[in-house]
Amino acid sequence: MEPCFDIAHLAHVEMYSDKFEESLDFFLRVYGLSLAGQDENSAYLRAWDDYEFHTLKLTRHHTTGVGHIAYRASSPEALDRRVKAIEASGYKVLGWVDGDLGHNSAFRFEDPFGHVFEIYYDTVRYRPPDGEKPALKNIAQRYHGRGCHPRRLDHLNLLASDVSKFRRFMETCLGSRVTEMIQLDNGRVGGCWFTINNKGYDLACTEEHGRGNARLHHVTYATDTRDDILRAADIFLENGVHIETGPHKHAIQGTFFLYVWEPAGNRVELANAGARLILAPDWEPIVWTEADRKKGQAWGLKTIETFHTHGTPPAVKNGA
Amino acid sequence: MEPCFDIAHLAHVEMYSDKFEESLDFFLRVYGLSLAGQDENSAYLRAWDDYEFHTLKLTRHHTTGVGHIAYRASSPEALDRRVKAIEASGYKVLGWVDGDLGHNSAFRFEDPFGHVFEIYYDTVRYRPPDGEKPALKNIAQRYHGRGCHPRRLDHLNLLASDVSKFRRFMETCLGSRVTEMIQLDNGRVGGCWFTINNKGYDLACTEEHGRGNARLHHVTYATDTRDDILRAADIFLENGVHIETGPHKHAIQGTFFLYVWEPAGNRVELANAGARLILAPDWEPIVWTEADRKKGQAWGLKTIETFHTHGTPPAVKNGA
Amino acid sequence: MEPCFDIAHLAHVEMYSDKFEESLDFFLRVYGLSLAGQDENSAYLRAWDDYEFHTLKLTRHHTTGVGHIAYRASSPEALDRRVKAIEASGYKVLGWVDGDLGHNSAFRFEDPFGHVFEIYYDTVRYRPPDGEKPALKNIAQRYHGRGCHPRRLDHLNLLASDVSKFRRFMETCLGSRVTEMIQLDNGRVGGCWFTINNKGYDLACTEEHGRGNARLHHVTYATDTRDDILRAADIFLENGVHIETGPHKHAIQGTFFLYVWEPAGNRVELANAGARLILAPDWEPIVWTEADRKKGQAWGLKTIETFHTHGTPPAVKNGA
Amino acid sequence: MEPCFDIAHLAHVEMYSDKFEESLDFFLRVYGLSLAGQDENSAYLRAWDDYEFHTLKLTRHHTTGVGHIAYRASSPEALDRRVKAIEASGYKVLGWVDGDLGHNSAFRFEDPFGHVFEIYYDTVRYRPPDGEKPALKNIAQRYHGRGCHPRRLDHLNLLASDVSKFRRFMETCLGSRVTEMIQLDNGRVGGCWFTINNKGYDLACTEEHGRGNARLHHVTYATDTRDDILRAADIFLENGVHIETGPHKHAIQGTFFLYVWEPAGNRVELANAGARLILAPDWEPIVWTEADRKKGQAWGLKTIETFHTHGTPPAVKNGA
Repeated sequence: MEPCFDIAHLAHVEMYSDKFEESLDFFLRVYGLSLAGQDENSAYLRAWDDYEFHTLKLTRHHTTGVGHIAYRASSPEALDRRVKAIEASGYKVLGWVDGDLGHNSAFRFEDPFGHVFEIYYDTVRYRPPDGEKPALKNIAQRYHGRGCHPRRLDHLNLLASDVSKFRRFMETCLGSRVTEMIQLDNGRVGGCWFTINNKGYDLACTEEHGRGNARLHHVTYATDTRDDILRAADIFLENGVHIETGPHKHAIQGTFFLYVWEPAGNRVELANAGARLILAPDWEPIVWTEADRKKGQAWGLKTIETFHTHGTPPAVKNGA
Repeated sequence: MEPCFDIAHLAHVEMYSDKFEESLDFFLRVYGLSLAGQDENSAYLRAWDDYEFHTLKLTRHHTTGVGHIAYRASSPEALDRRVKAIEASGYKVLGWVDGDLGHNSAFRFEDPFGHVFEIYYDTVRYRPPDGEKPALKNIAQRYHGRGCHPRRLDHLNLLASDVSKFRRFMETCLGSRVTEMIQLDNGRVGGCWFTINNKGYDLACTEEHGRGNARLHHVTYATDTRDDILRAADIFLENGVHIETGPHKHAIQGTFFLYVWEPAGNRVELANAGARLILAPDWEPIVWTEADRKKGQAWGLKTIETFHTHGTPPAVKNGA
Repeated sequence: MEPCFDIAHLAHVEMYSDKFEESLDFFLRVYGLSLAGQDENSAYLRAWDDYEFHTLKLTRHHTTGVGHIAYRASSPEALDRRVKAIEASGYKVLGWVDGDLGHNSAFRFEDPFGHVFEIYYDTVRYRPPDGEKPALKNIAQRYHGRGCHPRRLDHLNLLASDVSKFRRFMETCLGSRVTEMIQLDNGRVGGCWFTINNKGYDLACTEEHGRGNARLHHVTYATDTRDDILRAADIFLENGVHIETGPHKHAIQGTFFLYVWEPAGNRVELANAGARLILAPDWEPIVWTEADRKKGQAWGLKTIETFHTHGTPPAVKNGA
Repeated sequence: MEPCFDIAHLAHVEMYSDKFEESLDFFLRVYGLSLAGQDENSAYLRAWDDYEFHTLKLTRHHTTGVGHIAYRASSPEALDRRVKAIEASGYKVLGWVDGDLGHNSAFRFEDPFGHVFEIYYDTVRYRPPDGEKPALKNIAQRYHGRGCHPRRLDHLNLLASDVSKFRRFMETCLGSRVTEMIQLDNGRVGGCWFTINNKGYDLACTEEHGRGNARLHHVTYATDTRDDILRAADIFLENGVHIETGPHKHAIQGTFFLYVWEPAGNRVELANAGARLILAPDWEPIVWTEADRKKGQAWGLKTIETFHTHGTPPAVKNGA
């Protein structure tokens, strides 16, 4: 397929927290994002080189998980094409919503598992106030070096009970490409990594092993170096943050990773992919069998159990 | 403009050497590329994660500099569109040429300063022989760690006596976007950094200060980390390679850089851009005035004189 | 105690291999040591900045493990003082032996668990042959960047059934200080980390959980950066080396580590301690209880089982 | 000589500032030290892993430069030996002074160029208050990651009109060893690097090229990684700090360096030496001729002029 991208990039994620103040303190002071703005129920957060107003909308909620996932279109025309394609697709359409502090009106729709997506074009560019103006005019905001100080939003991972069904949704609605995937011995697809541009992936979907819908596995920001991630582990440790696994390296996508749980329980990651890009327009998905993965995943480290089971909101208990 | 990219990425560069054996030894043993193949006058070289057969074609020649610059199209249809646009542009067309070990037929044309470009779609994917097969199936070739071991081709820099004129060529023929540029106090454009995808740039053009046409400033490969570049400086030093400047950081594009001269005199760079990507579809070029650049270029380091004057082939002497 | 050090530093370790050729190939090509010399049964290996002729003596043997551990004295007088102290100590004395390619005569003695130690003063400084001469005269040998290219010998870890008894041996015979130790809930000392100079440790002793005497847990070389260790993991993976655990960070000593098994099964480590030094002359040992360690060991990573059981030579089987 | 060290390590430096508030803000917020205590005219600062109460005493003064340089003795007996040796040496003795917040009584003396030194044994160990207690009990203080967050005091550099004379002072009074030195073509010694333990150096003396006595060239703290120094350059740039030179690498001692001027003009450095240690008890000084240095100093970078001329307090003007 020709990568004539109607969608430009993953734009922002709305995360729910039932411990809003603790979560906000974590993202600002420890994780190292900045506060771009705030309204009644949400804080609009950004990494120092995100060009838009915000990339993480943290919302006070009765539970945890993901509120919605937003992608920015490449142009007004591209947005129209996508809206038509989605309306024709038969997937659930929620229609147009007003924007918020970060962008103007957006078109919302839903995947078969209840995750809410939106696409929009008209955005609000971040304009650094005095004190946040960078010394170098080609970065969006002053390099503050506070906390883990990631550079930009990177990707998120959603849980779905049928990854193949989710794949069709992503290809149909966003025109995403699968760059890598897990083929389980039982014939099911264990996970897919999607991209809409030259990144290795901007969204991953892995199989839901708990019960419940529309769950989030994690949201990830990118650091400039792997060393930033090693430092982050020390910073998380000193701040009593639960480090689930890492720093270590995934075989899939070759991502150097570190996963922690923010105070409300949402899993957040810091990641670095080195100089890797998907430049081939005719890239064929890398298919990892269970045998393939045994060889080299995390340099041989066995994946920790909670990584397969923990998601937000918490899984529905039996009989619930 | 909508980034509906007909061109997918910079594909390879042909470099001329009048000290072929020394240059080849440098690129294999010190710089850390691998030999994919060889024919009568050329060696086809690649970095360990380049997906195509080669990204550097080193050719035995009576002088130095760049033979041709190749970009890969996004699809056969995109290639047709580009060919039509170039033929209609009035720029000098050299027409179709047979491919080489690395790809099939390519369409050649020339910029107003004599640099030869080619675009093609049908390529030869690299198939690692035994001993070069990677442990992880999502990288193109075994990570060998030999020499400076860059990961992939990154960009090149060409010299032109009129950068604005070169800019029109790039926008017309390739659909490239300018992400950053230098606006000199004398009103001229001192340099432009172009990209065809989400990289900050894949080709730069800076003003020719010597005399001569079609000159090359440098060719660059990307490393996964800045630490790789610090190590490379030690490796170059131990191997008696002329280190011109770096490791240090450019204000423009924020690239961490190291420039050396290979045995025949062509300038080659190793670079790392951290996690930086140009994701905004409506990115406005960053315009650096001379005053802007004084603030923060290379953390304040004065640029070495030869960086403004040295190019290959050598400048034409007066009266020559 | 006043650190009037009779012993200057850990000098070299003799490692036995029952797969000599494979082990030698591993240490030269993958681990990145250099061959300083060879005699009938041994290869004398060194890291690029070790100042003595060798730091690892690899010896062809019917089994694996450690042959002897050598420390260099601070002066001839200091050597005499140590010899007298050892002879007066009641520990088993093996007496003077001729040196080998790496040093002159040495005084040998044994710990209560069968590990053979030697101390000497007259040494053979490494004199780089042409091709190994460094560009900078303050490093011992050319920085080659081959394989994992560690900089120098760092430490080793020995197994003993009674760590407290081993501690008395080290304090009495070498004048070593304990910088950190593990106090088990059962009242026993689980491990001690010893130093003779300003390093955090040059020898560690942990409790033997298998059966057998004089066993080796691991030998370690130091790299300049943590990034070197991340690269090493990729190099080990590509070369089919068994990666046991890491790269990760120990709570004790704060060492960033990577453990692999060389072809014959001896565990070898690459480690980096950052800028840490023990400068306090009155440093009090850090005592880690089991509860202390739970907090922060390897940023929360559970230690892999074989790390507690695997040593060389293999443990004696029951009834053996 | 046998390294029976009476002196354990460089302990702290008193720096004068005629812009006390600005200097203090720089050291706390940007350079990343912590405030251990304060009295009427001084702030007592420390890096996160310095074990003593403070390593930098910043004092409000009418000018800039160094107040005094303190070394800690290895024991009370070693202190007595040193005091006797200094009293017998003929160098200017200032006698015993009361300690301050950081240590008890100290013995003061002066080098031939007016720099004041002190030695002491009884010290005040840093006891972290709540909020500064580390997660890991083997580091002195919580890893805060604030600003450039160096780990510990590393060394300082003093200017003297006769380096050979200064060398005799250091050998006589402290028992320091010269590890590396510069032999100028004019026969003079251009600089000496001294150590009292296993570090490559804890004090350097280079030739005074301005006029004036007792001047300071720079004070340096050590970071765990070279990457910390690259990050620091961005932090200094964003905070408008004057970056004089670096990040780059010295041929002498192989130190990766970054020099800036704090608000009052005192030069401060961040440095990393990788895994380098001076372990040989019979280490011979490395002698660098001018020709030697041309090869490889800072990977070929020409040293910036102010580095040879700027010191604090400012040089005396002619006729002054």
